[in-house]
Amino acid sequence: MQADKLQAFELAPIRAAVRRTTIICSRRLDVHLGAPLIIASETFQETGSFKFRAAYAAAHYSQAGHLLTASSGNFGQALALAARLLGKECTVVMPTTSAAVKIEAVKGYGATVDLVDTRSTSRQKRVAELAAQIPGVEVLSAYDDERVIAGNSTLGEELADCQALHHFDCVIAPMGGGGLTAGLVQGLRAKGAQIEVFAAEPQLGNDGARSLAAGRIIANEQEPATIADGARTVSLGQHNFAILKDGLAGVIEVSEEEIKEAVRLLYSMANLKSEPTGALGLGALLSAGEKFAGRRPLIVVSGGNVDSSVYCDIIGAAAKSLS
Amino acid sequence: MQADKLQAFELAPIRAAVRRTTIICSRRLDVHLGAPLIIASETFQETGSFKFRAAYAAAHYSQAGHLLTASSGNFGQALALAARLLGKECTVVMPTTSAAVKIEAVKGYGATVDLVDTRSTSRQKRVAELAAQIPGVEVLSAYDDERVIAGNSTLGEELADCQALHHFDCVIAPMGGGGLTAGLVQGLRAKGAQIEVFAAEPQLGNDGARSLAAGRIIANEQEPATIADGARTVSLGQHNFAILKDGLAGVIEVSEEEIKEAVRLLYSMANLKSEPTGALGLGALLSAGEKFAGRRPLIVVSGGNVDSSVYCDIIGAAAKSLS
Repeated sequence: MQADKLQAFELAPIRAAVRRTTIICSRRLDVHLGAPLIIASETFQETGSFKFRAAYAAAHYSQAGHLLTASSGNFGQALALAARLLGKECTVVMPTTSAAVKIEAVKGYGATVDLVDTRSTSRQKRVAELAAQIPGVEVLSAYDDERVIAGNSTLGEELADCQALHHFDCVIAPMGGGGLTAGLVQGLRAKGAQIEVFAAEPQLGNDGARSLAAGRIIANEQEPATIADGARTVSLGQHNFAILKDGLAGVIEVSEEEIKEAVRLLYSMANLKSEPTGALGLGALLSAGEKFAGRRPLIVVSGGNVDSSVYCDIIGAAAKSLS
Repeated sequence: MQADKLQAFELAPIRAAVRRTTIICSRRLDVHLGAPLIIASETFQETGSFKFRAAYAAAHYSQAGHLLTASSGNFGQALALAARLLGKECTVVMPTTSAAVKIEAVKGYGATVDLVDTRSTSRQKRVAELAAQIPGVEVLSAYDDERVIAGNSTLGEELADCQALHHFDCVIAPMGGGGLTAGLVQGLRAKGAQIEVFAAEPQLGNDGARSLAAGRIIANEQEPATIADGARTVSLGQHNFAILKDGLAGVIEVSEEEIKEAVRLLYSMANLKSEPTGALGLGALLSAGEKFAGRRPLIVVSGGNVDSSVYCDIIGAAAKSLS
């Protein structure tokens, strides 16, 4: 049903606005893993993460002239730029505790930042207040929206297009709300590519694995406290689940230590700066390498935006473990 | 004269062995600089730096079955891999004080590492000893060799090929011994591209600027103590100077603080991990931005191999300066 609906979106304007993903290989990483690996990096996408694909699509298809979202992370930056490129207004609700660099980035792309003290007002409540105040505004979800899936499907299409060149036989991608993995399944299907998609999610927030096993959406009791801040979602989005429930080949749970080790390996062996969420795919290989024995996986590194303090806390330990 | 000689090298095998450079753009960096910038990143090249182009060419054209070089840095890793790919032996002389990760990297690519205590024996002396001991060995220079220039010229060719797409009108690249800049001039000329090449060198080792001004090679009194360890060369190579003396549009001297700020900006605004030497091109724009007013420069980020301790010392200060 979802698949039919998605055919309604004309993707040409989205394809034209996004940057093609960057394919990276590393012999040292291959030796370390004992198997060849292809990396599709979205860290050089507009605004530094795949979320621009989703945000641009949502902003493009929206009829509204003013877009509103709650995001302390990549979707806020992505929507801010998408709105500016499309000549629309944009307001991003962010907690007062957000890193200053992230607030500045959203402002830098031209959006209005609305700071909310989440100790007294929830983000959802503040969004509702603003939605009532701003004429003609539309509230956009970062991950539960068919337009988001359509935007992310452009990455699936690109991967299908470069499969003949790079010979991967499955894709492993980070999963929080499921917008990226649903888009990948959709895009690969649209191209008729027979490539399995595996989702990598933090063990601390394994609602995705439980939902797929149960055949219905199961939510975490609270936002999981994983270092992979892009996957701190309470549950899969409904639109995503409709695609993922029979679209995914499996879900791999990744420990916090494996996420950090994956960030370190991307730094030291592939010269690739990844945010913790972006390293989930490699973390899945560290966690469940035997599952991919004899296969040739492509991992999606979904984004690279990470504060230097968090990053150095992670890679600082690399020098010790490798020397 | 050099140009004629270079035509003798058949570059097809080199082009086939190297990875194409990675083109990256960053809107945030453009806003910060007040001008559009194109980045050609060699950080995802084989062994993480452009040196693989040079090393593979030198190893390919060499008649010897055993290659020997002194390098504590990128050329050692690059030659180690090139030799392995070409079925040759390789020995790399490295100081005992080299970072363990660098020694492991050279060994990992299959070369023999010969550690020398530079307090008692110079690297040159040890290389001479080994050259006398190993039958049929050839000693290779990292930067003063026509084959090195030929290898690096493949990057110039690639830039010429993508100029129509990215519309840059000049190239700024790091300069130590001058092998990269000479190769760029050579490759661009071979393609008939009318694109000026500027060299960016550390102020602490400004022998390049002095040599170009004097019209003859002037050496630093000692190895300059710049953080850009890939540019700690005493002088330009003679083969390189023959091309650079009328091939460069100019030399820009970059302070240590500008090199570090460039590393920070590439981290925070472009998600690009660069080693200090790799950031010299952006450092040149910070140092002499007025020189490029109204122009559209491409900077070559020459490599990304940097220890996490050095890297975090540099980008750790970013959080402070940006927040």
